[in-house]
Amino acid sequence: MSPRDQGAVAAPGVGSDPVAADPAVPPRRSDATRAAILRAARERFAADGYDRATIRAIATDAAIDPSMVMRYYGSKERLFAAAAEFDLRLPDFGDLPAEGLGAALVGHFLDRWEEDETMIALLRAGATNPAAAQRMRQIFADQVGPAIRALAVRAGVSSPGGEPALPVEQRAGLITSQLLGLALTRYVLLLPPVVGMDRAELVDWLGPTIQRYLLGRP
Amino acid sequence: MSPRDQGAVAAPGVGSDPVAADPAVPPRRSDATRAAILRAARERFAADGYDRATIRAIATDAAIDPSMVMRYYGSKERLFAAAAEFDLRLPDFGDLPAEGLGAALVGHFLDRWEEDETMIALLRAGATNPAAAQRMRQIFADQVGPAIRALAVRAGVSSPGGEPALPVEQRAGLITSQLLGLALTRYVLLLPPVVGMDRAELVDWLGPTIQRYLLGRP
Repeated sequence: MSPRDQGAVAAPGVGSDPVAADPAVPPRRSDATRAAILRAARERFAADGYDRATIRAIATDAAIDPSMVMRYYGSKERLFAAAAEFDLRLPDFGDLPAEGLGAALVGHFLDRWEEDETMIALLRAGATNPAAAQRMRQIFADQVGPAIRALAVRAGVSSPGGEPALPVEQRAGLITSQLLGLALTRYVLLLPPVVGMDRAELVDWLGPTIQRYLLGRP
Repeated sequence: MSPRDQGAVAAPGVGSDPVAADPAVPPRRSDATRAAILRAARERFAADGYDRATIRAIATDAAIDPSMVMRYYGSKERLFAAAAEFDLRLPDFGDLPAEGLGAALVGHFLDRWEEDETMIALLRAGATNPAAAQRMRQIFADQVGPAIRALAVRAGVSSPGGEPALPVEQRAGLITSQLLGLALTRYVLLLPPVVGMDRAELVDWLGPTIQRYLLGRP
């Protein structure tokens, strides 16, 4: 246990922000404690999944008392929303012809959801928890929007020469509506016909949809 | 207050099922109490919305004690899942040419979501609550599936003569994936570009998607 963590544990009786309550503790200590909690939370959520990960295990990993985790983050759900770092790992599909981008995007997201259950956990949380919903909007703004813009520019749909049929930002929104709807029905609501379709069928059917939202017209 | 309700209120101290705990009480009384709770819950959820409707108000409307509501249903979320009766009011679009069905379905669902907030409440609940998710699968099986089948048969896509490119059940699943994804991004996650599109734009862009899932091929 590092001196920083011992210091945090040694002051369990103070108010909702131990640093604010004790002017002798420098801000850096609080920041470091938060960072240690988030680091441990990310590893636990990734390794155990949202449901099985516990505040207690995360606190143990961060070498601090569970009550400190609750003091900083209030609930497991809020900690998850704060910790969740999702790298969608969107490739630039540089070697792919433009007409294959829609199918490639569908396949990529199916693979990511299958390999990282915390992405589905964030979707569940986002439906009821404002912090998680905000995190999803941030992921959209940071990762989905720019990636779709890059693909659209490469394919010429938003070149300076021609007015696009729809702003790229809204194309990214439509793409997200179909992809998150697939995740919702397949992994969360477990709608039988959607669960029953295999990867190739889903890519075949949803690929042209994403392709049109990305580069086409209504 | 009816004699039935007075009887229910008069036995608050018994076990988790007051009827099972008292063989002198006929099953019909329990059924009638449940029916009164569900009737009151439906009206409250419809009038006040999920968040503002309270167990206390529902119990008052049903003229029984709030503890009885909790005894029968355990939580507001479970009561909601049990009470939620959603008539999607899917018309048969009998006067519409087949090529307009996709756009008509998108417009219909946008209208239903805007006019009945409990539909979005069920979507939120379904993301985290198994009973609500089960209710959504039931609505799909009872209403969406048959309606899509009727539309597909009318348009000839599943006529006995020709093998359809995709079973109608899976067509209904794909349609649901796009429509619920729209509801999720627009009304729950509040994704800015999807919130920012108006009804006509959404019908224009999603109509062809639903049309292809309903009657087309990949």
